Amino acid sequence: MERKVVNIGVLGCGTVGCAVVMSLLKNRKALREKTGIDFVVSKVCDKDIKKRRLFPSHFTSSPDDIINVPEIDIVVELIGGTGVALDLIKKAIEGGKSVVTANKAAISEKGKEIFRLAEAKDVYIGFEASVAGAIPVIKTIRESFVGNSITKIFGILNGTTNYILTEMFHNSVNFSTALSSAKKLGYAEADPTLDIKGIDTAHKLSILSTLAFNRYIHWKDIYVEGIEKIEPLDITFTSEFGYRIKLLAVAKREGNNNLDIRVHPALLPSSHLLSFVGGVYNAIYLEGDMFGRSLLYGEGAGGPAAASAVISDIVDIGKKLMHKSMSQKTTTSEDKKLKILPMEEIDTRYYFRFTALDRPGVLAGIARVLGNYKISIASVIQKEESPEKAVPILMLTHRAKESSVRDAITEIDHLSFIKSPTVLLRVEE
Amino acid sequence: MERKVVNIGVLGCGTVGCAVVMSLLKNRKALREKTGIDFVVSKVCDKDIKKRRLFPSHFTSSPDDIINVPEIDIVVELIGGTGVALDLIKKAIEGGKSVVTANKAAISEKGKEIFRLAEAKDVYIGFEASVAGAIPVIKTIRESFVGNSITKIFGILNGTTNYILTEMFHNSVNFSTALSSAKKLGYAEADPTLDIKGIDTAHKLSILSTLAFNRYIHWKDIYVEGIEKIEPLDITFTSEFGYRIKLLAVAKREGNNNLDIRVHPALLPSSHLLSFVGGVYNAIYLEGDMFGRSLLYGEGAGGPAAASAVISDIVDIGKKLMHKSMSQKTTTSEDKKLKILPMEEIDTRYYFRFTALDRPGVLAGIARVLGNYKISIASVIQKEESPEKAVPILMLTHRAKESSVRDAITEIDHLSFIKSPTVLLRVEE
Repeated sequence: MERKVVNIGVLGCGTVGCAVVMSLLKNRKALREKTGIDFVVSKVCDKDIKKRRLFPSHFTSSPDDIINVPEIDIVVELIGGTGVALDLIKKAIEGGKSVVTANKAAISEKGKEIFRLAEAKDVYIGFEASVAGAIPVIKTIRESFVGNSITKIFGILNGTTNYILTEMFHNSVNFSTALSSAKKLGYAEADPTLDIKGIDTAHKLSILSTLAFNRYIHWKDIYVEGIEKIEPLDITFTSEFGYRIKLLAVAKREGNNNLDIRVHPALLPSSHLLSFVGGVYNAIYLEGDMFGRSLLYGEGAGGPAAASAVISDIVDIGKKLMHKSMSQKTTTSEDKKLKILPMEEIDTRYYFRFTALDRPGVLAGIARVLGNYKISIASVIQKEESPEKAVPILMLTHRAKESSVRDAITEIDHLSFIKSPTVLLRVEE
Repeated sequence: MERKVVNIGVLGCGTVGCAVVMSLLKNRKALREKTGIDFVVSKVCDKDIKKRRLFPSHFTSSPDDIINVPEIDIVVELIGGTGVALDLIKKAIEGGKSVVTANKAAISEKGKEIFRLAEAKDVYIGFEASVAGAIPVIKTIRESFVGNSITKIFGILNGTTNYILTEMFHNSVNFSTALSSAKKLGYAEADPTLDIKGIDTAHKLSILSTLAFNRYIHWKDIYVEGIEKIEPLDITFTSEFGYRIKLLAVAKREGNNNLDIRVHPALLPSSHLLSFVGGVYNAIYLEGDMFGRSLLYGEGAGGPAAASAVISDIVDIGKKLMHKSMSQKTTTSEDKKLKILPMEEIDTRYYFRFTALDRPGVLAGIARVLGNYKISIASVIQKEESPEKAVPILMLTHRAKESSVRDAITEIDHLSFIKSPTVLLRVEE
């Protein structure tokens, strides 16, 4: 049998890049035994020449030493972002190379362009590491559940925010204390805006939904709310109601042609499996017409976890290259009929935190407005008088329409006894 | 582009077989759009000719109409067992056909032979449906975690026993009542021996371990205990200690060359994710050197769930056939050094239920024997006197060696105040 070799060039030698290269070097023999293919690291590139000491015999600071070298079969892009990384991905594909990337921003924003270019050039794109680290959710949706019509995705896709919410729950600290602790432990970046505001989650949900629902979905088409507004009392009170608050990625097929897709903090029943996903872990809950209900749970970030997914893609592409197979079909004929449901049209249960003066008739006043909008109250807790004479009133509703809820809250927030804007969270079950 | 067609013959038209055929017929266009391949059901075979009315234009009662037809590319074996089904699998492979099967007994007992035959004939064997229904655990171990060294598998792999234990926990019923309820709901077969005694779980664990640890493991090499001995008071008392009882498949790499592998009811901390796996659901918890910790959860049985896994295998093999690729390497060069740890040598924590006369000195007598065997007590509950003057004493130990524990229990069970054989369960955390 001829010797089967796949040559790999790695762009970016940060935490994930280093973990990928170290694993490929260390496990070369094991991978050869498992696959019959010799996976060889040809070059490792980083603009920081101080990284040379990590892999002196493989190092280069010029991407051209990877992109322009015909012998390199697979380019592993681990720089991130939609600037130079995106350029290099495109150049690699144009040069006939397959690409493995963890770049959620590039896939989420430019996936359509990247996949089409790859099909035209008959090369492969692996992006398992772009969503939920080591969790094989992309392969599961594309391959394991290929015979299914997927009807629902619930995801905890961001470790930073899940850590913060877990801290707030277990240690009764407020948002900023939990955020400081996340930063101290390296779970939050210096500027955690993309995480906190839910944008990172939206990037990932756009990728999963594109695959699951066969329609390109840009993250900007997804309604997004962050977790900044959550206060300890929301966590305490919702837990009294039997719920846990998670930053949830939601995508549900409604009827034939509507997609209810959004990212926001949501109340989940404390018995729901996703409620047990704590700390920096990620999980994806799926429903489909054949497999029923499924949950995938694991480490959503970190060098080795992401490297595990990158290597899985490298091996898959290596096998395909060896087999001289036909090009990858990432989405095929798109479902053009599928329409994203406007946020105003969603229908769910709601949690409200009203901040009102502690005086007679307040609850009646709120209830009257809700009744006018046909919003029915499921339960309510009014806590004791607080020193500043404004009290929180916590309420859970039955199912209602988002547009009615927004109108009702606007009207309630104009009532004289309401002292702060009402906080609104949605329930998923 | 030439028309790409894969012809499929289905052997066995029970719940799973029917679900597979119905899905292939219904989703033919969708699969063609997703994969570029036309998956065609050629024949459906069942020995019961009354099944003809289900698929009149595809039906045959003779397996030869599938096995001996050159145009058929993939044989889907859904008869089960190691009799005629195994013969048909081998004949199909010998005829140059790839095989997809849900047959855990055949793969567990004859996997080595089947895989070697398939390699020799350059065909593929898909068996995702043989373990945990729709949960993509086989693909995850073989492909997604290919770069990892897997160090631990914990599995809840049998829906019948998990349903029984869940019933006993939630409704405080005894084993036989829970079993009757399982039978009534179709969750247990008329003869549930293989499930109850843990043998079905051992079949599945042998398949997962063979893949994860790269060493053929026959289910008869696995220590197995069933759940018949569990009584409601074990469930109540272990839950007071903060544990849940599950029929657990355990496989742990100990050091370089030892494999601790067994199936028995185990106490899991009630905070462990597997503790939340209720009813007929299955789940597999994995640990590896790169991905860290991972959990896969879903429907472990039922027609549509198993069919989801069968179709995933059919599509994977269809793609490979179209790509004229090289043969599958299922295990490659085996790890001959890996040795199964004898049960006597395992080291874990234990739960004991002693049944003793209610008189002074009993606890001291038990504790003295345990002390002689260097078994250290972590906590103990002695319940009030029972009408028949024998009381249960519930005990949790610190880590101890199985051989010492067995010797100590034998000695304790000979003490005059012990009225019934002591029940022993192991703790995993």
